[in-house]
Amino acid sequence: MSELTAEETPAFGSRAWAQAFIERPSITNAILVVIIFNAITLGLGTSDTVQAQVGGLLDVIDRLVLAIFVIELTIKLYAYGLRFFSSAWNIFDLIVVLLGLLPDRQGLSALRGLRVIRALRLLSVIPQMRAVVQALLDALPGMGAVIVMISIVFYVFAVMSTLMYGEAFPEWFGTLGRSLYSLFQIMTLESWSMGIVRPVMEVFPFAWAFFVPFIVVTAFSVLNLFIGLLVNTMQSAVEAETEAEISKLRDLVKSETDVVDAHVVELRDEIRALRTEVAALRRPDNG
Amino acid sequence: MSELTAEETPAFGSRAWAQAFIERPSITNAILVVIIFNAITLGLGTSDTVQAQVGGLLDVIDRLVLAIFVIELTIKLYAYGLRFFSSAWNIFDLIVVLLGLLPDRQGLSALRGLRVIRALRLLSVIPQMRAVVQALLDALPGMGAVIVMISIVFYVFAVMSTLMYGEAFPEWFGTLGRSLYSLFQIMTLESWSMGIVRPVMEVFPFAWAFFVPFIVVTAFSVLNLFIGLLVNTMQSAVEAETEAEISKLRDLVKSETDVVDAHVVELRDEIRALRTEVAALRRPDNG
Amino acid sequence: MSELTAEETPAFGSRAWAQAFIERPSITNAILVVIIFNAITLGLGTSDTVQAQVGGLLDVIDRLVLAIFVIELTIKLYAYGLRFFSSAWNIFDLIVVLLGLLPDRQGLSALRGLRVIRALRLLSVIPQMRAVVQALLDALPGMGAVIVMISIVFYVFAVMSTLMYGEAFPEWFGTLGRSLYSLFQIMTLESWSMGIVRPVMEVFPFAWAFFVPFIVVTAFSVLNLFIGLLVNTMQSAVEAETEAEISKLRDLVKSETDVVDAHVVELRDEIRALRTEVAALRRPDNG
Amino acid sequence: MSELTAEETPAFGSRAWAQAFIERPSITNAILVVIIFNAITLGLGTSDTVQAQVGGLLDVIDRLVLAIFVIELTIKLYAYGLRFFSSAWNIFDLIVVLLGLLPDRQGLSALRGLRVIRALRLLSVIPQMRAVVQALLDALPGMGAVIVMISIVFYVFAVMSTLMYGEAFPEWFGTLGRSLYSLFQIMTLESWSMGIVRPVMEVFPFAWAFFVPFIVVTAFSVLNLFIGLLVNTMQSAVEAETEAEISKLRDLVKSETDVVDAHVVELRDEIRALRTEVAALRRPDNG
Repeated sequence: MSELTAEETPAFGSRAWAQAFIERPSITNAILVVIIFNAITLGLGTSDTVQAQVGGLLDVIDRLVLAIFVIELTIKLYAYGLRFFSSAWNIFDLIVVLLGLLPDRQGLSALRGLRVIRALRLLSVIPQMRAVVQALLDALPGMGAVIVMISIVFYVFAVMSTLMYGEAFPEWFGTLGRSLYSLFQIMTLESWSMGIVRPVMEVFPFAWAFFVPFIVVTAFSVLNLFIGLLVNTMQSAVEAETEAEISKLRDLVKSETDVVDAHVVELRDEIRALRTEVAALRRPDNG
Repeated sequence: MSELTAEETPAFGSRAWAQAFIERPSITNAILVVIIFNAITLGLGTSDTVQAQVGGLLDVIDRLVLAIFVIELTIKLYAYGLRFFSSAWNIFDLIVVLLGLLPDRQGLSALRGLRVIRALRLLSVIPQMRAVVQALLDALPGMGAVIVMISIVFYVFAVMSTLMYGEAFPEWFGTLGRSLYSLFQIMTLESWSMGIVRPVMEVFPFAWAFFVPFIVVTAFSVLNLFIGLLVNTMQSAVEAETEAEISKLRDLVKSETDVVDAHVVELRDEIRALRTEVAALRRPDNG
Repeated sequence: MSELTAEETPAFGSRAWAQAFIERPSITNAILVVIIFNAITLGLGTSDTVQAQVGGLLDVIDRLVLAIFVIELTIKLYAYGLRFFSSAWNIFDLIVVLLGLLPDRQGLSALRGLRVIRALRLLSVIPQMRAVVQALLDALPGMGAVIVMISIVFYVFAVMSTLMYGEAFPEWFGTLGRSLYSLFQIMTLESWSMGIVRPVMEVFPFAWAFFVPFIVVTAFSVLNLFIGLLVNTMQSAVEAETEAEISKLRDLVKSETDVVDAHVVELRDEIRALRTEVAALRRPDNG
Repeated sequence: MSELTAEETPAFGSRAWAQAFIERPSITNAILVVIIFNAITLGLGTSDTVQAQVGGLLDVIDRLVLAIFVIELTIKLYAYGLRFFSSAWNIFDLIVVLLGLLPDRQGLSALRGLRVIRALRLLSVIPQMRAVVQALLDALPGMGAVIVMISIVFYVFAVMSTLMYGEAFPEWFGTLGRSLYSLFQIMTLESWSMGIVRPVMEVFPFAWAFFVPFIVVTAFSVLNLFIGLLVNTMQSAVEAETEAEISKLRDLVKSETDVVDAHVVELRDEIRALRTEVAALRRPDNG
């Protein structure tokens, strides 16, 4: 399928034409309809009944949709050239479409599952969704330092728990990876006590002195992450609002003092006129 | 019972009269008392002891209350005509009362249960409750984009988990519906690890790479939903407050500069008078 | 013991003296020390080893402390008369002390436990703690409407679940009380799915349509409760701050315009003087 | 190892030189690299495979790193003298390094685990991490009163639960310590109902009247802790922002009124000049 599109693309002629074509609203809307249609057929594919009756049709549709996506992206690649890769959304689209091109002869359910990620193109194609995701991602840099701190705390506690509890509880703390997973579970508070810490305390009675501080520290860090995020968002919102209000007030102060100043200047002109008159009074030829 | 009220309504005469009647405080208060009374009797009906002793009486009361509600709504329908349906509260009242008219010969406990929703009329009849519910509903549109995004993420992850884990864990991920339910449970963090992901990981060791990102993404999205909601509410509250303060300040600036300006204008008049005097001084008949 | 204090109190003479005595810092500090000391001895009483060795001593201490509290409150009652009951803190103190006077011949552990509530007097005696508790209580009225709404929703869902699931799951939904408890557990998300809803869905496959909306509605209501509380607190904090800033600005506007106005008035005086001089120029005796 | 460094340090000569040396960017960066390298080797040490193959090397590295840390801290101690202890970060560094000097002949896994805390030096050495931790710690004092209140409530409920449920459920409430741990678990809502309260209610049917209020009170207190923290952070952020805006406005008011005032003063000069002229007009030698 990819060879086919590779052969087709040169036929489109100039890059400008390709760019105009791919950005035409009718084309972007058609792609959106295809994505939604594909999301529905992928959903239907999960039903054994549907699979048994029209499984073949669904497979054909899937290949057709994939072909459309490959053509779309090939045109885009041709139209934008290397600029194509300057947008993270394009790279995302490319990856999720390429995932669908992987061979699935083995019928691996994992690969079939991965192909569904394609439906996430809804997030990259609908502008409102793009804005929401962008807003989520924009929040990340401000959280950087706290995330690094939590990562360090996680790593240190994971190494410690592996060394201390790994031998007695290999399933939970046997390797660094298992410890990280178990600590993530404990951070979400899921079955942390009845499921993990109470059994551990039966072997190590002071295990609470390890896990309770871990919960308090991570909970407090996540809380601060959240507060930082909230204050940032709030601050910029309030800032914009206050600035607008203050700006209106500034204009008022200016216009009001301008009125007074205009009157004062008018006054000065009156006085200057007066002085001219008084000067005329004093002139010798007046006497 | 519905025929009875259908026969009665024409007797009320003009629509204006019906409207005035149904909006009379004594009538709305009486309806409120009936709703509260009905809520209590419905509660009493859950006790087997009470049911055994005065179950018949409770049934009679229930029918009586239902008749009162049907009459009330019939009058409202007559009084307001099609405008009745312009209020979502009226439609809510109509539906919960109609639910009570469904036959329950089969003694289905589900239908008996549904009838209790009638007690939620408390929310639609007490103005303060109406305001609270309205405030909750008003918050929804601002959350629209994030809710759509979470829905898309949910759908995609549900299709993926059905394809990947459906065969091995039919009870949790056998169908799209079951997957959606299980993912909702995982999003609420209930038994997500000990109950679901650890058993899944025994078959698919890399299942954590599917579920941990899901938890992080949905937790982060819900957090942003919440922050958006909070910032909106806060902003409008602060905005109103700041505007009031700034408005007072604006009035002050105006009144203060007006005082100065009045003095300046007064000054101008003085100077004009002076110029007249000086001009009089210069007039030839002065010499 | 209570008779003893009843006999003693008249000896204190005037109410003013009693009031001055009980409000003396040395007395309030002494009471605080007694409360802390009692909190420690009550804690020691939980240890079987300590109980076995000095259990008798602890009992004597407990009775002594109780006697001190009874004397303290009797003096307060005498000193303030009916005004004693105008403070919720006094009523709280009275109740927790009276709980200690209940007979415990039966050795009921529940009664022994209740007596420990006395240590909560720490909250009512330390002014900072009182302020914190007061702040918590002050937040309640603003949450009134939402709390009533959540209560109505809880009641309606409890009646419904009792009618629908009571027969099949008597342990969880057998009575209205059990349903309310189970719904509270579900609202806190504890084992809601694996523990309750999944077993219920095995009998009633559509039970998720009852419980998932319940979780969403209560979570959303609690969220709004929290947002309301937060916005209120924030608003009053920001309000105070903005008011102070604006007030300073107001003073500046006033003083600045006053300076200008003073100069303008000075100017008017100059001009008036000028007019007098010009008038003098015009006077006939000038020629 | 410690003797070695003790012998070395005098050789560095003056304290100023030692201080300049230890604060040199190349030295602090080298220490940072050593910490990160050590964090990685400590992590590798958790793998049995790695341990089997290069366990000896890891041990040597660990001792080498420890030697470097001891030398670093010895130089710091020499350079700053008693001022070394005025920084909590230095004390933290000292303690985690000293933990590594404890003998581990017994091969106690707990001690091996404790040594890993050394990797937390990342938090004390990277300035950004230091700022984050500092921000977290700075938030603590403002939360003091609420934390004391929650502690008192915890203590009282723990004593009560030990007295009331200790005999029947020794594993959960047998001692004050166990009760405190169980109440902490209940506060985090982990298995509070299915795991603890429902079993307790089978023996004490009214146990819900103890645990549900505990959950509500602690949840409400933690909520208020969080709101207090948030309002504080927000307030200082908004305050700074508002102050800046208002300050700009203040400057504007000043400059604007200064312009008007300058004009008014200019006017006064004009009038004074005029008066002089008029006075000259009136002078006798004019006639």
